[in-house]
Amino acid sequence: MKITCSQSELVKGVNTVSKAVPTRTTMAILECILIDASKGQIVLTANDMEIGIETIIEGEISEPGIIALDARLFGEIVRKLPNNDVTITVDERFQTQIKCESANFNITGKSGEDFSKIPAIARNNPIVISQFTMRELIRKTTFTISDINQANKMMTGELFEINENKLRVVALDTSRISIINIELRESYDSKKAIVPAKALNEISKIISGQTEDMVEIYFTDNHVIFEFDKTTVVSRLIDGEFFNISHMFNGNYDTKMTINKKSLLDSIDRSTLMLLKEAEKKPIVMDIADNRLTLSMSSFIGKMKEDIDIEKTGKDIRIGFNPKFFMDALKVIDDDTINAYFVDHRSPCFIKNEEESYIYVILPVNIQEA
Amino acid sequence: MKITCSQSELVKGVNTVSKAVPTRTTMAILECILIDASKGQIVLTANDMEIGIETIIEGEISEPGIIALDARLFGEIVRKLPNNDVTITVDERFQTQIKCESANFNITGKSGEDFSKIPAIARNNPIVISQFTMRELIRKTTFTISDINQANKMMTGELFEINENKLRVVALDTSRISIINIELRESYDSKKAIVPAKALNEISKIISGQTEDMVEIYFTDNHVIFEFDKTTVVSRLIDGEFFNISHMFNGNYDTKMTINKKSLLDSIDRSTLMLLKEAEKKPIVMDIADNRLTLSMSSFIGKMKEDIDIEKTGKDIRIGFNPKFFMDALKVIDDDTINAYFVDHRSPCFIKNEEESYIYVILPVNIQEA
Repeated sequence: MKITCSQSELVKGVNTVSKAVPTRTTMAILECILIDASKGQIVLTANDMEIGIETIIEGEISEPGIIALDARLFGEIVRKLPNNDVTITVDERFQTQIKCESANFNITGKSGEDFSKIPAIARNNPIVISQFTMRELIRKTTFTISDINQANKMMTGELFEINENKLRVVALDTSRISIINIELRESYDSKKAIVPAKALNEISKIISGQTEDMVEIYFTDNHVIFEFDKTTVVSRLIDGEFFNISHMFNGNYDTKMTINKKSLLDSIDRSTLMLLKEAEKKPIVMDIADNRLTLSMSSFIGKMKEDIDIEKTGKDIRIGFNPKFFMDALKVIDDDTINAYFVDHRSPCFIKNEEESYIYVILPVNIQEA
Repeated sequence: MKITCSQSELVKGVNTVSKAVPTRTTMAILECILIDASKGQIVLTANDMEIGIETIIEGEISEPGIIALDARLFGEIVRKLPNNDVTITVDERFQTQIKCESANFNITGKSGEDFSKIPAIARNNPIVISQFTMRELIRKTTFTISDINQANKMMTGELFEINENKLRVVALDTSRISIINIELRESYDSKKAIVPAKALNEISKIISGQTEDMVEIYFTDNHVIFEFDKTTVVSRLIDGEFFNISHMFNGNYDTKMTINKKSLLDSIDRSTLMLLKEAEKKPIVMDIADNRLTLSMSSFIGKMKEDIDIEKTGKDIRIGFNPKFFMDALKVIDDDTINAYFVDHRSPCFIKNEEESYIYVILPVNIQEA
């Protein structure tokens, strides 16, 4: 094999596919990036068996061929080369020479035959959304998925639910639910699939996030495929039935609070200073009265208290929350002013806008006991 | 005590003195910042018994007093307050209230009487250099001091040697020496002192680095004092006689190489990719011939080879170095083109400019054995 590409194109390609290189594995071949120049295009691929990423890079093929190179070593080499043309030459014993200007590296590759290719999957009728929308929906939901819940496999994924021209994405853990509703440009057949949060996180790192660039999403029974630019990401789906949460959304509430988001976020953030040195979780207590929210937290470190102006309808309420869960949701909401809905001190709080393009549900903490 | 200062002034003061708060200590009082508003000024102090820092902040004293507050907690609180006036009120039981807008914190302080004040030291005839020069001399020498050499106390400090209007700063470890020569504006009595590198590193983080701002340096038998802006840093000196290195500087050499610094640095940096996965240290081999330096490194990962154009006078030489030591020196040299001087493959390499404002001495590695 002999190919020549620009250093910048190689770096871009390696950075893209590296997201599917496992950090720890017993199979050395999985730690490789496959360079396939056997079919008239230069295709880089990485595959950790959960997700696979392939991307086409620009370049010239002087001699077709295929080689697997250690991802970390190859990545570091191309990143440190001068920004000029890079020539990669491979002999029949997989000895690989990487040349750029006067720099000359010789490393040993592996046969591309041993590499696990990405499954070939029939693609039809893609759902099309902008890369901006894709990145936003990931940012606004994946924080909900915590490593702690790896035990419950269903909680490591997000529900993608399509009904006509609506896409609903749901992520949850044991204390909260995050929902994003998106209007699609076209209508599609109904579909439910659980996409691993890991795949979504990796995608959000490699898509451009531009509104004019598109992502095509294909669902099959076992896989989801995201296609954008010259890149394809394939992920297994999580098998099973997602949690039924419909009973939580009856629309009734007794208290509605309208508040400046930044004031609330900053104040809760300050309250967490009272947790600096203790492992014990203390709740932030919210006293919601006419025109005023009083936040307070006390721990053995000290006490914190702060008032914020609000608009309130309905009855007064005193309720406690894990401050982190409240902050996590507030951080990803773009609105300057938010609405929060409460029933009583034992029922979840709903933070949502009128259109319900986002709904964050947070379970309270029992403060009577505390 | 009752004082009012702007949040930004408090943050600046806390950030400055925090550099002298020990990260681990058994004496809780050392983890505190002392706020002393007993003498008509608001002075913040921290002291880890090796270095002490005090700084004066702007503010209003409504009721004089003194209090010691946990540095980490107090620092986090003031950093997270709104950018507005902060009022700190302390009662006779050291209960401390920190108020800013509607935010209200109550924490417990400690008696300022238990705090170890910075030693009062007579100051006369300071050496004056710009903050820019101070920061540069620190940047260009402290990298030489490695944690590994903590066993040899003398290697944890830098020699400051004053002769008339010359300041020479020397740092070394077992494989290299870094020397910076500075011309002072005035002449001073001869002086030698060994300043802990830790103190220098902390100072470089808090000085502005501007050419128009000055640092005054006072030496006593046991201490060095740096005064700048409204801040005083006091450090113990290291006791003893510094290494005698004068025999190394006889000025003879057999080979002189003139080379573009960036080309050399980038190439050595690339060579270290061959060390990615191995703990074993491999030398970078330099073959210096007429007009050409050939760099090479080989390891079980692979081989790297690169040519760089040079100007050379004297005989050809083949010599090996620890690549890190060479890179460390090259990184802090500002010149685009550097001169390196060699005697033979067992003798140190000297990198220096004509005026000898910097001299980096690096011991070679035996490549005959390797």
